[in-house]
Amino acid sequence: MKSIRDKLYIVIFESDTPAGKTFDVALIISIVISVLSVMLESVPSLRAQYQPQFFAIDWFFTILFTIEYLLRIWTSKSTRNYALGVWGIIDLLSILPAFLGLFVSGTQFLLAIRILRVLRVFRILKLARYISAAQTITKALANSYQKILVFLGMVLSIVIILGTVMYMVENGNDQQSAYSSIPLSIYWAIVTLTTVGFGDIVPATVMGKIIASLIMLIGYAIIAVPTGIVTNELLHLQKEPRTCPNCGNAQNDPDAVYCKKCGSKLDAV
Amino acid sequence: MKSIRDKLYIVIFESDTPAGKTFDVALIISIVISVLSVMLESVPSLRAQYQPQFFAIDWFFTILFTIEYLLRIWTSKSTRNYALGVWGIIDLLSILPAFLGLFVSGTQFLLAIRILRVLRVFRILKLARYISAAQTITKALANSYQKILVFLGMVLSIVIILGTVMYMVENGNDQQSAYSSIPLSIYWAIVTLTTVGFGDIVPATVMGKIIASLIMLIGYAIIAVPTGIVTNELLHLQKEPRTCPNCGNAQNDPDAVYCKKCGSKLDAV
Amino acid sequence: MKSIRDKLYIVIFESDTPAGKTFDVALIISIVISVLSVMLESVPSLRAQYQPQFFAIDWFFTILFTIEYLLRIWTSKSTRNYALGVWGIIDLLSILPAFLGLFVSGTQFLLAIRILRVLRVFRILKLARYISAAQTITKALANSYQKILVFLGMVLSIVIILGTVMYMVENGNDQQSAYSSIPLSIYWAIVTLTTVGFGDIVPATVMGKIIASLIMLIGYAIIAVPTGIVTNELLHLQKEPRTCPNCGNAQNDPDAVYCKKCGSKLDAV
Amino acid sequence: MKSIRDKLYIVIFESDTPAGKTFDVALIISIVISVLSVMLESVPSLRAQYQPQFFAIDWFFTILFTIEYLLRIWTSKSTRNYALGVWGIIDLLSILPAFLGLFVSGTQFLLAIRILRVLRVFRILKLARYISAAQTITKALANSYQKILVFLGMVLSIVIILGTVMYMVENGNDQQSAYSSIPLSIYWAIVTLTTVGFGDIVPATVMGKIIASLIMLIGYAIIAVPTGIVTNELLHLQKEPRTCPNCGNAQNDPDAVYCKKCGSKLDAV
Repeated sequence: MKSIRDKLYIVIFESDTPAGKTFDVALIISIVISVLSVMLESVPSLRAQYQPQFFAIDWFFTILFTIEYLLRIWTSKSTRNYALGVWGIIDLLSILPAFLGLFVSGTQFLLAIRILRVLRVFRILKLARYISAAQTITKALANSYQKILVFLGMVLSIVIILGTVMYMVENGNDQQSAYSSIPLSIYWAIVTLTTVGFGDIVPATVMGKIIASLIMLIGYAIIAVPTGIVTNELLHLQKEPRTCPNCGNAQNDPDAVYCKKCGSKLDAV
Repeated sequence: MKSIRDKLYIVIFESDTPAGKTFDVALIISIVISVLSVMLESVPSLRAQYQPQFFAIDWFFTILFTIEYLLRIWTSKSTRNYALGVWGIIDLLSILPAFLGLFVSGTQFLLAIRILRVLRVFRILKLARYISAAQTITKALANSYQKILVFLGMVLSIVIILGTVMYMVENGNDQQSAYSSIPLSIYWAIVTLTTVGFGDIVPATVMGKIIASLIMLIGYAIIAVPTGIVTNELLHLQKEPRTCPNCGNAQNDPDAVYCKKCGSKLDAV
Repeated sequence: MKSIRDKLYIVIFESDTPAGKTFDVALIISIVISVLSVMLESVPSLRAQYQPQFFAIDWFFTILFTIEYLLRIWTSKSTRNYALGVWGIIDLLSILPAFLGLFVSGTQFLLAIRILRVLRVFRILKLARYISAAQTITKALANSYQKILVFLGMVLSIVIILGTVMYMVENGNDQQSAYSSIPLSIYWAIVTLTTVGFGDIVPATVMGKIIASLIMLIGYAIIAVPTGIVTNELLHLQKEPRTCPNCGNAQNDPDAVYCKKCGSKLDAV
Repeated sequence: MKSIRDKLYIVIFESDTPAGKTFDVALIISIVISVLSVMLESVPSLRAQYQPQFFAIDWFFTILFTIEYLLRIWTSKSTRNYALGVWGIIDLLSILPAFLGLFVSGTQFLLAIRILRVLRVFRILKLARYISAAQTITKALANSYQKILVFLGMVLSIVIILGTVMYMVENGNDQQSAYSSIPLSIYWAIVTLTTVGFGDIVPATVMGKIIASLIMLIGYAIIAVPTGIVTNELLHLQKEPRTCPNCGNAQNDPDAVYCKKCGSKLDAV
């Protein structure tokens, strides 16, 4: 016979039983409401009018999530693994800011702390746990991690060099130029290369416009690189043998839908 | 011998006969003209000058589309399937706003209703029905639906977290900052991550510019994910056996142009 | 023995002989200089100072290109094919605006004509003729022509519908809104969906910002569609048998570098 | 027994030994600090306050990199190959601006020279040497070099033609228009086509907005071309036999992880 701890474990950590599914849905709804509350609390007009309501909602969910956190600590098969794992830390970070606000006084500081509580939105990342497709994307990104890093390194080199050249061109021409320092020029080069283009800083000189055109064309062309990397990785994953989540048989064909050993449905790639 | 209903069915619902083709072309032209009329009616200077003309055009097409809608209801093989299907509802929505304007009085309200009539532009979506290539794109998007949703979830998590951090950084530094609330900061993070970059809200602090650069680089890099997903799905579709739209033979080679059983032309992938 | 006409044909139309290569390079340099001249002529300060020089350069190249056009007409194997082909028309359009300026008087009108002469930049498109890689890109784009058109149709439907909704939301809230008409709102939706984001028109209401976020996320996600289409087409081209440009053998392997019949180098895919 | 020169060669040029690894890490940190110093030196407020510190840091690293450069010259197996190679020139360019500042007087000019020293950020490109994934990206870009050039040529033709048309439309309507010359209109067309969209120049006329919409949609659609090219090239690289960096065996399977002759780990594709 299962103990209460085992039963709770199934409800809290798994989502195969009806109770577990209900718990997960309730949890997601609670997270969304509490995040919305923190977000709306930051709107000056709403904060002025509904201060007590926000306070009540914040503490209601803080207490709820604290109980949930303690239950997770208690029921988890390895408390150490949970508490020091990615999700354990996220769970803790999503309740800590509220309690920190109790021990520290000073209105201005408290305000900043209250906003920090918003970090509990990290909880919402849990959503990804429940959708199997996330694994494919995460795996493709993880496998191409090295190449994406190299690509970002190349992008950084380009923006540092061209940002500096831009500073020399625009600031050399006019000391009152919007390109008042190299870091600011690099920031502008990032804004331009990534094709964001805020337009708060724009080149004034002919030479500056030519360099800006160069940065834009480079940015427009090299976006092909991360795209090519990820597409390749996804294609590669589709050609790998599939592992059955049920029996662990790792010899299924890449295009198999059901495990050829136990007949369980395989995750979609 | 075919009844009038059957003959009308072929003209209205099919496009293989000359009459059916003529009907379809006439319908598309009518839709484009009526949409253009509603669009131009919204321009203040044109509305002031050509009020009666717009009124006449609007009602001419409303009556035309109403007759067409009733004929579709009458001739369709399963009225229920048509009326409750996607296209039936779109057809109804494209005539309803005009009639709603008749029963409700009050100038200000009528104005809003008149603009609602514009929803008949949904009709233009019918165009897609006639081009077979649309099926491939729709299928690729439908198959990768799950992954694109997960991707959007990841994007939303990133903009909520980084938008909040941005609010703390910019608003903590200056209470009169353009980042006046968390929802607005999240809106800005979406504008920045998607590389749109309106430039109406821009970071003022050094830390804000560093976080903005981070958001831009993330946005520039992760655009690779939906691209990789769709490219993969399209490649996958090309490797699937083709189904003949005529005889239903589903065993044609992925690169077949004609059905190997009945010789009908297959849709392009 | 070859006639002068045949010799000129080889020099003008082909680029395999040293004379032909020299001619092509000289032509490209001439085109670039004449385009630069027309471009710089439009700068008010330069036009005021160097009016006679621009006049001389314009007419020098106009006469040069006219002689070249007449030689092409004379030497081409099929005058009809050349004159009515894409390049023949482009060649004609690149000299016509200059002569049109002679017969029509009126300063203001002449100014417009002078600017029209700039259309000779179309000549620069000839550059593509000489680079074999252009064929692959053009072929991939031509093959996916249908799908890209459907995609553009989808994009247009989205911007018409969401542009109209945006007009209703923003203009319904404030009659003095920047979204003063539906066509302008659709223009804004295109600016936003394509992630350009000029920032001259930005949503003012909360609902408007939510719809804008939706448009941006759609634009950010569906860019995957044309990318997937073109990538697929390029992959497909690489799997097709290669045709030898020398002997016409169409049975070379997709990855062949030299023709297996005559040993000629094949074009790169 | 190895000479000092050979030992130094291993430390400076290779990174397999502990000493070589330490040297590389120290070098990278030095480069980052020196680049940051030059960047921060350009910020007016910091330059005013920390002038002597920046001077000390600049010269400390200039002398350090000079010693390193001389050691590289001395220890390299072929001085000629190193000194005239890409990295040798970058190494020289990263120390030269500091020494140039000594022989040339004149405050205003010196300031410009000091900024030129920033070009030592080129050194940071060395980082790429150490990450093997960079080779794949570089190779894919190098292989598709021709196609990307053709694509850029197409983009340039589009922006020249549409930029000119835009100038005619906007300037013809209003001589005081923001589109004051063709080069400026082309610059704007590049800003728009690449989806950067600064918003400093925006169309004012209806026709201008229609052409702008066209440019945006073209830019949004043709980004598929470089993406398709690079994705293809990366896929192609994965299908090529792998060459072992240890024994030179070029017959390894495309998906091999270890050389089948000597068992060395192969570089990741």
